[in-house]
Amino acid sequence: MDFTHSPRSIELQAAISRFLDEVVYPAEAEFHQQEQANRAAGTPFATPAVLAGIKQEARRRGLWNLFLPGDRFGAGLSVLDYAPLAELSGRSIAIAPEAMNCSAPDTGNMELLAMFGTDDQHSRWLEPLLAAEIRSCFSMTEPAVASSDATNIATRITRDGDSYVVSGHKWWSTGAMRDECAVSIVMGVSDPDADRHAQHSMILVPLGAPGVTVHRSTTVFGYDDGPHGGHGEISFDDVRVPAGNLLGAQGAGFAMAQARLGPGRIHHCMRALGIAERALELMVNRSLHRHAFGGPLASQGVIREWIAESRLAIEQARLLVLKAAWLIDTAGVKQAATEIAAIKVAAPRAASYVLDRAIQTFGAAGVSGDTPLAEMWAGVRTLHLADGPDEVHLRSVARVEINRARSAAAGR
Amino acid sequence: MDFTHSPRSIELQAAISRFLDEVVYPAEAEFHQQEQANRAAGTPFATPAVLAGIKQEARRRGLWNLFLPGDRFGAGLSVLDYAPLAELSGRSIAIAPEAMNCSAPDTGNMELLAMFGTDDQHSRWLEPLLAAEIRSCFSMTEPAVASSDATNIATRITRDGDSYVVSGHKWWSTGAMRDECAVSIVMGVSDPDADRHAQHSMILVPLGAPGVTVHRSTTVFGYDDGPHGGHGEISFDDVRVPAGNLLGAQGAGFAMAQARLGPGRIHHCMRALGIAERALELMVNRSLHRHAFGGPLASQGVIREWIAESRLAIEQARLLVLKAAWLIDTAGVKQAATEIAAIKVAAPRAASYVLDRAIQTFGAAGVSGDTPLAEMWAGVRTLHLADGPDEVHLRSVARVEINRARSAAAGR
Amino acid sequence: MDFTHSPRSIELQAAISRFLDEVVYPAEAEFHQQEQANRAAGTPFATPAVLAGIKQEARRRGLWNLFLPGDRFGAGLSVLDYAPLAELSGRSIAIAPEAMNCSAPDTGNMELLAMFGTDDQHSRWLEPLLAAEIRSCFSMTEPAVASSDATNIATRITRDGDSYVVSGHKWWSTGAMRDECAVSIVMGVSDPDADRHAQHSMILVPLGAPGVTVHRSTTVFGYDDGPHGGHGEISFDDVRVPAGNLLGAQGAGFAMAQARLGPGRIHHCMRALGIAERALELMVNRSLHRHAFGGPLASQGVIREWIAESRLAIEQARLLVLKAAWLIDTAGVKQAATEIAAIKVAAPRAASYVLDRAIQTFGAAGVSGDTPLAEMWAGVRTLHLADGPDEVHLRSVARVEINRARSAAAGR
Amino acid sequence: MDFTHSPRSIELQAAISRFLDEVVYPAEAEFHQQEQANRAAGTPFATPAVLAGIKQEARRRGLWNLFLPGDRFGAGLSVLDYAPLAELSGRSIAIAPEAMNCSAPDTGNMELLAMFGTDDQHSRWLEPLLAAEIRSCFSMTEPAVASSDATNIATRITRDGDSYVVSGHKWWSTGAMRDECAVSIVMGVSDPDADRHAQHSMILVPLGAPGVTVHRSTTVFGYDDGPHGGHGEISFDDVRVPAGNLLGAQGAGFAMAQARLGPGRIHHCMRALGIAERALELMVNRSLHRHAFGGPLASQGVIREWIAESRLAIEQARLLVLKAAWLIDTAGVKQAATEIAAIKVAAPRAASYVLDRAIQTFGAAGVSGDTPLAEMWAGVRTLHLADGPDEVHLRSVARVEINRARSAAAGR
Repeated sequence: MDFTHSPRSIELQAAISRFLDEVVYPAEAEFHQQEQANRAAGTPFATPAVLAGIKQEARRRGLWNLFLPGDRFGAGLSVLDYAPLAELSGRSIAIAPEAMNCSAPDTGNMELLAMFGTDDQHSRWLEPLLAAEIRSCFSMTEPAVASSDATNIATRITRDGDSYVVSGHKWWSTGAMRDECAVSIVMGVSDPDADRHAQHSMILVPLGAPGVTVHRSTTVFGYDDGPHGGHGEISFDDVRVPAGNLLGAQGAGFAMAQARLGPGRIHHCMRALGIAERALELMVNRSLHRHAFGGPLASQGVIREWIAESRLAIEQARLLVLKAAWLIDTAGVKQAATEIAAIKVAAPRAASYVLDRAIQTFGAAGVSGDTPLAEMWAGVRTLHLADGPDEVHLRSVARVEINRARSAAAGR
Repeated sequence: MDFTHSPRSIELQAAISRFLDEVVYPAEAEFHQQEQANRAAGTPFATPAVLAGIKQEARRRGLWNLFLPGDRFGAGLSVLDYAPLAELSGRSIAIAPEAMNCSAPDTGNMELLAMFGTDDQHSRWLEPLLAAEIRSCFSMTEPAVASSDATNIATRITRDGDSYVVSGHKWWSTGAMRDECAVSIVMGVSDPDADRHAQHSMILVPLGAPGVTVHRSTTVFGYDDGPHGGHGEISFDDVRVPAGNLLGAQGAGFAMAQARLGPGRIHHCMRALGIAERALELMVNRSLHRHAFGGPLASQGVIREWIAESRLAIEQARLLVLKAAWLIDTAGVKQAATEIAAIKVAAPRAASYVLDRAIQTFGAAGVSGDTPLAEMWAGVRTLHLADGPDEVHLRSVARVEINRARSAAAGR
Repeated sequence: MDFTHSPRSIELQAAISRFLDEVVYPAEAEFHQQEQANRAAGTPFATPAVLAGIKQEARRRGLWNLFLPGDRFGAGLSVLDYAPLAELSGRSIAIAPEAMNCSAPDTGNMELLAMFGTDDQHSRWLEPLLAAEIRSCFSMTEPAVASSDATNIATRITRDGDSYVVSGHKWWSTGAMRDECAVSIVMGVSDPDADRHAQHSMILVPLGAPGVTVHRSTTVFGYDDGPHGGHGEISFDDVRVPAGNLLGAQGAGFAMAQARLGPGRIHHCMRALGIAERALELMVNRSLHRHAFGGPLASQGVIREWIAESRLAIEQARLLVLKAAWLIDTAGVKQAATEIAAIKVAAPRAASYVLDRAIQTFGAAGVSGDTPLAEMWAGVRTLHLADGPDEVHLRSVARVEINRARSAAAGR
Repeated sequence: MDFTHSPRSIELQAAISRFLDEVVYPAEAEFHQQEQANRAAGTPFATPAVLAGIKQEARRRGLWNLFLPGDRFGAGLSVLDYAPLAELSGRSIAIAPEAMNCSAPDTGNMELLAMFGTDDQHSRWLEPLLAAEIRSCFSMTEPAVASSDATNIATRITRDGDSYVVSGHKWWSTGAMRDECAVSIVMGVSDPDADRHAQHSMILVPLGAPGVTVHRSTTVFGYDDGPHGGHGEISFDDVRVPAGNLLGAQGAGFAMAQARLGPGRIHHCMRALGIAERALELMVNRSLHRHAFGGPLASQGVIREWIAESRLAIEQARLLVLKAAWLIDTAGVKQAATEIAAIKVAAPRAASYVLDRAIQTFGAAGVSGDTPLAEMWAGVRTLHLADGPDEVHLRSVARVEINRARSAAAGR
């Protein structure tokens, strides 16, 4: 196991840190005010205006699209090299990832397009996404079924001549509410009679296509995630798209979803740990400057223990994510399956713990909008569910252990 | 220990259950829609219109002001007898407590007025509150200091001739944002040179008085608690009120705050357990009707364990609250101090656990506004901080144990 | 719910407290020394000599056989009235229960004999047990199967003329190793073709009967539980006993086991809470007298939190046990099934927590034999497994919740 | 961070795995029987005879003294390279470490001697220890004080002419009870007036010296740790030793203790994780072969979750230990201070969790001597206290975080 970052990654870490210090953190208050003003104006899903300049600056500094592997479209960083960059972006989760064009779900969509897209799809969708001229969403989860069990998916993608017809009802299509969101990658069943893992396909559906209705945005606790385009509930009623909109091979949807998940999990988890680092920093500073019962909170043993436990949780989770990243780079997503399942539980758990204790340290301010903690907490809480609840990932980890024991017993 | 409820309490429990089934639950969806419509209309702190009829119905059924002890103004129920009524009201926390005129902070304010108010204060403030013609708020917490340490309070209440002059900055004055909120009970330092626990007073300040500015409402995990009047941040700039507005004796503020806390804690904790019961009910029903991996969620051992642990947590916490209630009734608030501190930790903890597992059982729907779980969770999360963070209450419990051991050692 | 203890129970509580202070605690050191001396002498299962005098004194004070309900043989105390007596006996778990002839497994066996025994069985077994002239053990668990699932039991009890023939292999027959242990109540399958819950019987097997072999004693975390007769592993090889040795009706074994469990659970759980109270007392005293980092441990916030959490855990668990006891008394064992399952998890959990934190407070002394904490911990740890692991009881609690929801749904 | 093990370490890992499979595991039962036979014969501290041959075999295979860094006496492995070897030895904790002459406390003592010993001390003590001709113990902890606070140490080491006179009372001198134990390294105050960290010295005291009395062995839960020489309580009454027995410089005791701790912590923690891996393996196998409620335990979701959580806990803790090892190798013990403190909490915590769940999976067998789990648990429980309780290490971790925040604030 070699977690050494390349010189280029180390350079980029320093550059992103400077970018955060010089550009992003100073803009957080304004971003937040514009967000509230947009909401008051009845346009909650408008992007706060300050973001445009920050994006320009990120691009100017070469901090753009760093997430994308490969040389053709991407920055060519290994997953391990990109991991600390994702973590840093998590420190200002509302601004930094999008400022660097490295925010979900566009990252995952761009990866899919880069890996499986046709030239036509590249020029029509990938290039504008890489230039941040448009945004995209991903439509997988369905309200009517437990989508963590992929066999439950009910949306249909049916070939009809030169077209596919898409019918289904999706929600949690993050980003769908904003005007810039031009396209969704929709997951559905194209081959209901095929083998269990060969039934699904992915298809590109422009949000303006006839039959697409974006009904509303669901909230996360009380947050609308407005600046990031909310979370759309969308129905697809016999939406007809050209056959060329199919992404990858018909029936390959499940495999592509798996491929998408590997590096994406690293991104999600590292951003969560960046959130946790920011929260720990806030907690420690609060404990130094808030006084009660005769001294700063930092002099109280209970709060010191929270600080220490936070450090332990972050360190351990980060190392596990780095191991998963290193495995993806050196052995492939499949060989890293256990670790990818494990970090999906471990990293949000660490971040949730730190955030909760930071909130407690801040008292009433912690649950309010006066610190970023409550909203960060809500975001991290969803990670215990998004892409499958913790329990599904723990099942996967257990299955590997049990199968290994079975094989060992059989081998004796 | 005798937790037997009086026949009248048992009758009222049945009446409230019927009221919930027949009136409140059926109105929840409409209440929620009106709340959202108010928000969309830019009047988030307006009371959803459906509530008026529900209140009338509660009053008609004799389910009104049941919280208030004593015969003069109150229903004359013991704390133990009222406890299960508070729990039932928690099952529909957004509607039921206010529908029965039993919602915080008005309940605590009415208690203070009933116990310590003058005849004039009774006619001016208490009677309209009992009739729900006005609402009130309570201004104790200050943004600049750790208010759980009462010696930190900076607001000043200064006698000047026939008036008092109030100066200070408060926040988390729940209910202050709505038009009906007519008055705040403000806690401040009136006698800075007196003994530590004789420095504070409480005073009635009309929100329309010159010098009172309600700046904004703070949010709780993104929620504005609009239908309940939000949480006001208020500055009092040399606000002059007649000396007759002082509540109780000058310097008695700390003692009155303690008196207010006892039964109020029971109410808060029982409502939290009502929330937990509702959440458990939702979780169990979800587990019966949602299928994944070949069967209903209820067939999965992990989810069954959450259900069982939820039952254990609720049962144990409820019994402790009942013990505290019984102690208040039979031995007084002072003798119940340990239990009142203990339930402030135990009941929210139980409710938080159940809500978190219920959310997890519901998946993405659980964090959204499509179930009441996320908003209930946010409300319960604040109970780990409101009226002092858990840690302060645990300190109190520990102090009693340690002092008892010291006394026992000295007595030998 | 009325947890008021009768005047007689209150009197007995005071008498037991005095007995502990005057007789039991002062004898603990000597008991422990004799135990070690017996072990060094190769007779680990001999009863420490000091116990005889303590028993005599308990009997003289009227603190004898208090556990047994009913007037014929027993003290006539309700389960609720006996509960605090069991708790007090737990404070000196190695001595007090046996000193008062109230120690498991004899208590459960005496209850079975009193409830289901014939006159002949009463005079042959019950009376000597009540007089503490003999001891008994209970043989249910089998090493080869998961005995928490009763359908797994493999021991056979076969009618053959005027005899029954018993064949099987048991372990964890607590008390079997000491000379005074005269008889075992053996659970086995007598009617393999009957309904699932009508297959088992219980039979009295003298340990001296031909075919009975006591192989060895199993240890508990290194402890042999020598003074209480260890935990015997026993094989029954075609052991022939008179048909009159059958306890109760043939096929009624399962029902009798259930009957035995109810009050026995209360005893176990209350003793566990007595252990916890003792541990908390030791922890608090240690924290007052041990100094590190500039003050007594009691001045450290982390240790104060352990003390407070211990109080919360004990209080809540005790109230739940009292509720279960009250339900058994007023509604019967069957109606109390959920609570009996719940306390089996909650009480050992509370005690384990307190003991673990007490051990941590004592440092290295805590894990040694110089405090009673480590051995008490080991004993309580087995309660998470004995009479079924926690998980089996949680399943039972969940089943009730789920069935209730199903019925409610069906009723609508 | 580069956790890549050298080819030599990888080779040794394979060799130790073979040694475990071929020699150690097959001898466990005999070792355990001999241990019990020794105890029955009144010689609990005799080394089971089977160990001698296993040691010879380890030596023959080149698996000897691998722990010791440096080329002069040691194997020359880096801390990172030795870490996985320590883990493997933990899989058979009762036999493997000592079989390879890599067991505490001799390892730490040999390190001290190698680093700070004179030529004379090397020939008299180090060489026989390296040849396993003698054993040693370490005398630091004192029963009368909280030794985790080094300023509490009361033992005095006083220069008197050509001698030092040692006076004090120690306990938990692991290994002291066996005949082969020839010498103790005693920590005491030599310079009471010096600076806080320059007051202590270490001195070599032969256990046969006049004035040395080994009183007894303390137990750990019910275990005497007989085969490893128990845990001696020793008084040193004016014990006079030549001045040449002083280890290192006078007043350097504290610094040497710190130096000893770094790699020693890695060893302890990795062995604990080896224990955890063994326990997980046992748990998984049990779950495959034990049936209840209609299937193997492995089909139950709750047990699968324990298995998965165990894997998460082990993986994360191991990576943190490897990071600490890598830091020691590349930056020195001082730079690794936070990580060394953190793993002291994290690794035993992971192992305790896994062991507890493994015990629960085994049911009653788990708490008995029929599996190694209970004894392993007891050993790991002491790691939460030995070399300072968890809480002291968490304080250290918190201090670093708080100081870093203070520096950052000052630097702005």
